[in-house]
Parts: sequence; structure tokens; C-alpha cells
Amino acid sequence: MKQLSECTIGISGLGLMGGAIAAALRGRCGIERGHLFACDIDKQTLARAANEGLIAQGFALEAADEMLGACDVVFLCLNPSALIRFAGDNESSFKSGALITDIAGVKESIARRVQDFRADIDFIPGHPMAGAEKGGFANAGLCDFSGKNYILTPLARNKPENLAFLKSLIYRMGFGRITEVSPAEHDQKIAFTSQLCHVIAAALIDCEGDTAITRFGGGSFEDLTRIAMLNAPMWTELFIENRDALLARVSSFETSLDALKALIAAPDAAGLEALLAAVRVRREAMNR
Amino acid sequence: MKQLSECTIGISGLGLMGGAIAAALRGRCGIERGHLFACDIDKQTLARAANEGLIAQGFALEAADEMLGACDVVFLCLNPSALIRFAGDNESSFKSGALITDIAGVKESIARRVQDFRADIDFIPGHPMAGAEKGGFANAGLCDFSGKNYILTPLARNKPENLAFLKSLIYRMGFGRITEVSPAEHDQKIAFTSQLCHVIAAALIDCEGDTAITRFGGGSFEDLTRIAMLNAPMWTELFIENRDALLARVSSFETSLDALKALIAAPDAAGLEALLAAVRVRREAMNR
Repeated sequence: MKQLSECTIGISGLGLMGGAIAAALRGRCGIERGHLFACDIDKQTLARAANEGLIAQGFALEAADEMLGACDVVFLCLNPSALIRFAGDNESSFKSGALITDIAGVKESIARRVQDFRADIDFIPGHPMAGAEKGGFANAGLCDFSGKNYILTPLARNKPENLAFLKSLIYRMGFGRITEVSPAEHDQKIAFTSQLCHVIAAALIDCEGDTAITRFGGGSFEDLTRIAMLNAPMWTELFIENRDALLARVSSFETSLDALKALIAAPDAAGLEALLAAVRVRREAMNR
Repeated sequence: MKQLSECTIGISGLGLMGGAIAAALRGRCGIERGHLFACDIDKQTLARAANEGLIAQGFALEAADEMLGACDVVFLCLNPSALIRFAGDNESSFKSGALITDIAGVKESIARRVQDFRADIDFIPGHPMAGAEKGGFANAGLCDFSGKNYILTPLARNKPENLAFLKSLIYRMGFGRITEVSPAEHDQKIAFTSQLCHVIAAALIDCEGDTAITRFGGGSFEDLTRIAMLNAPMWTELFIENRDALLARVSSFETSLDALKALIAAPDAAGLEALLAAVRVRREAMNR
């Protein structure tokens, strides 16, 4: 791989995360405008990004091959189904030797699709853990990468030098910790830390019809349901794509919820206090 | 009631909330040190508060009658069971004409206990919605009252001028909104916005033993479980005291969770996306 300052970088999908990555590449990483391109379904977004000086040029999706042929590094920032479709449709268009990565919140299905990709391109699946509850390019500024987690699920075929290059770029974008795991382990862990939490937040809102309930809020309800302002099409894909792992996590959560219910209903004050004290200790141990 | 600047104020229980109220009274409300007293089980805390210039004098619990006899306004900042015990043990010690209020997170049991209190004292039950996940006087600075909710559940016997005085004081402490409801309505609403959320956070931690899971965190898990660092004795009391309302809220949450599970398992992408989109709209409407 070239020096970063000599690389041409393309972003496919200039939404919330694509926009935030573009901004981090230009700002924190010092990529020159002339080296950054984007393609998107929304021509107004592309025009805005070009007018703001964020990118050199925008490409319509049907002209993505023009962009991809010039890019040493490509970030695929699309919903999982669109991402798999885009990568397949454009497999022949990527520049030989290109490093390609993605941001999808599920990794097994992505890894399955790209592991037989053209031998002369290197696809390293990834997942930046730094979203926001409002979507779209206009809200990209809400994504703060500082100190956040980034998961990589490298394939056996990935070149070590490309993996090192990508990790360096990720840290330069501001992320604080990179964890490398298998796609399967990613999907198991994310089913808990991300998808189960979004399901719970959605259920909490679904079971309360009174929109004036926030008069009785003291922070807990607000914290637990902020993520219920979710991107419905994307989360629908993520939940369904990873449904086996997610439903297993829902079940184990329900088992713990049942245990708490039983202690409250009994009521067993000593047992409940012991469980809550143990929970506190464990949660404190989870603070990194 | 006197002018606020002429009032002597007592705080019974100088923990997280008692300490935060003391600081707000001294700071935002301009109460002079000589007019603020506290009693607590912990003599070191009292000595620290006196040495820091927060209070004029601290009293041991067994000497609370000395303090109460001098106070025009009293904040009872104890766990529910200790609060009910303290109020009963000291009913004869309150100054005639005193305004008494409390901070307990359950209100029906408090209101039941104090509605037959001495006719010459006025107990107005309340609930400041501004806690923190770390307890104790040392962490009182973590409580930020600015713009927060405060619930009052006045009794029929409360004097209108005392209620007006207390509301003015609450706003001067920094709270942004006061809602007056019956004790029963308070307990129903709080079962949802506060207690159910704490039960869910506890269950989420209980069902995951891997303390390194935060490597896979992107904010959702952290937001949903911050409150799992809870004060176990206090929350045990709150959950059990309000268990009928809380268990009903857990059930309705489980009904919504079941609906989501069924859509994911089917999988019914269209139904799931429609539900998630409706959730987003409702949650956005809940932003005050």
C-alpha cells in the first residue's frame, strides 16, 4: 500500500457513518480534498459534500465504477443488503490492489460474500462502534469517534500489511481501541451489546403510549430509550440477519428478568439485594 | 411561612441527595450557613460537611430532636423504611408550623404514614428526579438539578401557602419542572420511568458474565446499564414497596418484547420495520 497521503479514497454511501468517516479522513487524517471521492444514491448529498469542500467529486451509484477504478482504499458505508449487492455488482470495478472495508453491524454474512472476491483486492470487514440516534449525512457531525471501539473481523486471506495500514488509519480517525475477532464472535457479542439493547429500547417505547411520560423522567428512561430513535430499515436488516444470535440473547435476558421478577414478587428482600449488589460489582468491573 | 432567608432548614440524611440539596440551598438559594443543619448516622460525614462550611452543625440521629425543634423546613433524605421510622420516632420533635418534605422514590406508603401527622406540621411528599449512579455524600456533586423534573404528591391537608413556598424553593434549587400528582399516580408512572428501567439494566448485567464485553460497546450497552451501578439496599426497598405497579409494568414490557421477538423470528421484515418506525416517531414525540 502507498503512503496514506498518496492514497485516493472512495466512500460508497455518504450517510451518517460515511459522512463521519469522510470528515475524519479530511480532518484528523489530513487527506487532501483531491484524494477523496464518494458515491451515493442521493445527488443532493453529493453536491452538498462537494460544495462544502469535503470531497473532490461525487458519483451516482450507476457511475460507481468510475470512482472505484481510481481508489486505493474504499469504505463501503451502506446497509448490509445494499452493501452486499453493491460489492457484487461492482466486483470487477475495484482497482487492482485496493483495500476495501465496510461498516456493517453484522459480519458473518459480509465475510461469506467477500471471501471469494477477486484475488487482487483485499476486503477487510469492519464495524466502527460509533453511531448516533439521528441518521443521514446532515447528522454526521453527531458521530464522535474519539476513544470509541472499532471491531475488525479479518479474513485469512487478508494481507498483514493492509491490515496494519487499516488499523493505523482507524486510530488516526480518532478511535481508541481496535478488537480483532472472527465474524461469528462479532455477531455473538454485538447481538448483546448493540442489537439486544435496541430491541429492549424499542419494547420500552412500544409498551407506553403516554408521550407526556417524560414529566416523570429522571434520566434512566431517557438513557434507556434514546436509541429507540433508530433507523428502522437498517435495524430491521441487522435484527433479521443476526436473528439466531439475537433471539438467544433475548432469551438469556428474559431468564435474568424472570429471576428478578420472582425475587420482587416473593418478596425476597435479602435475595434481591444480594443480586443487585452483585450486578453493581459486575457493572463497575465492566468500566474499562 | 417566614421569608426563605429567615428560615432555619434541617436535612435528615446527608447522603447523595441530602448532600446535593444542602449544596443547592447554600449555593443557588443563598441560605446562610448558620441556617442549615443536618443529622445523619455517619458522624464523619457530618464533621466533613461542617468543616467544609456547608452546614452550621451536625447532629447524631439520637439527637435529631434538638435539630428538628429549631427547623422551619425539614428535608427527609432517607431510604423509605428509614424515613418512615424516623418521621414516626420524631413526630413530637418537629417545630410547630414546620414544613416537612421528603425525597423517597415511592409515595403511597409515605403519604399513608404522614397523612395523620400532627395537625400543626405540614408534610408535603416529594420526589426530586435527579439521582446519580454513585451514592453517598462524597458523590453529591454528581447530582445536577438544572432543568430536572421534581414530582410533588400534595396531601389534601397541605396548606396552599406552604405548597407555593416549597415549589418556589424547588425552582430556586435549579429544577426545571414540577409535576403535581396523586401518590398513586406517582407510583404508577415511576414504576415505568425509573423502576422498570433499573430492573432491565440489572437483568442485562445479570445475563452477561464477560466483563470484557465493553470492547464491543458502542454506547447503547453503556447507556442502558449505567444505572445498574445502583444502591442495592435502596432499590430493593423501592422495588418491593411498589411491587404491584412494577410487576405490571414488567409484564407490559414483556408483551412488547414478545411482539418484537415474533417479528424477528418469523422473520417479518415489513412488520418489524413498521413497528420500529412507529417506535421512533413515539420516542421523538417524548422529547419535551
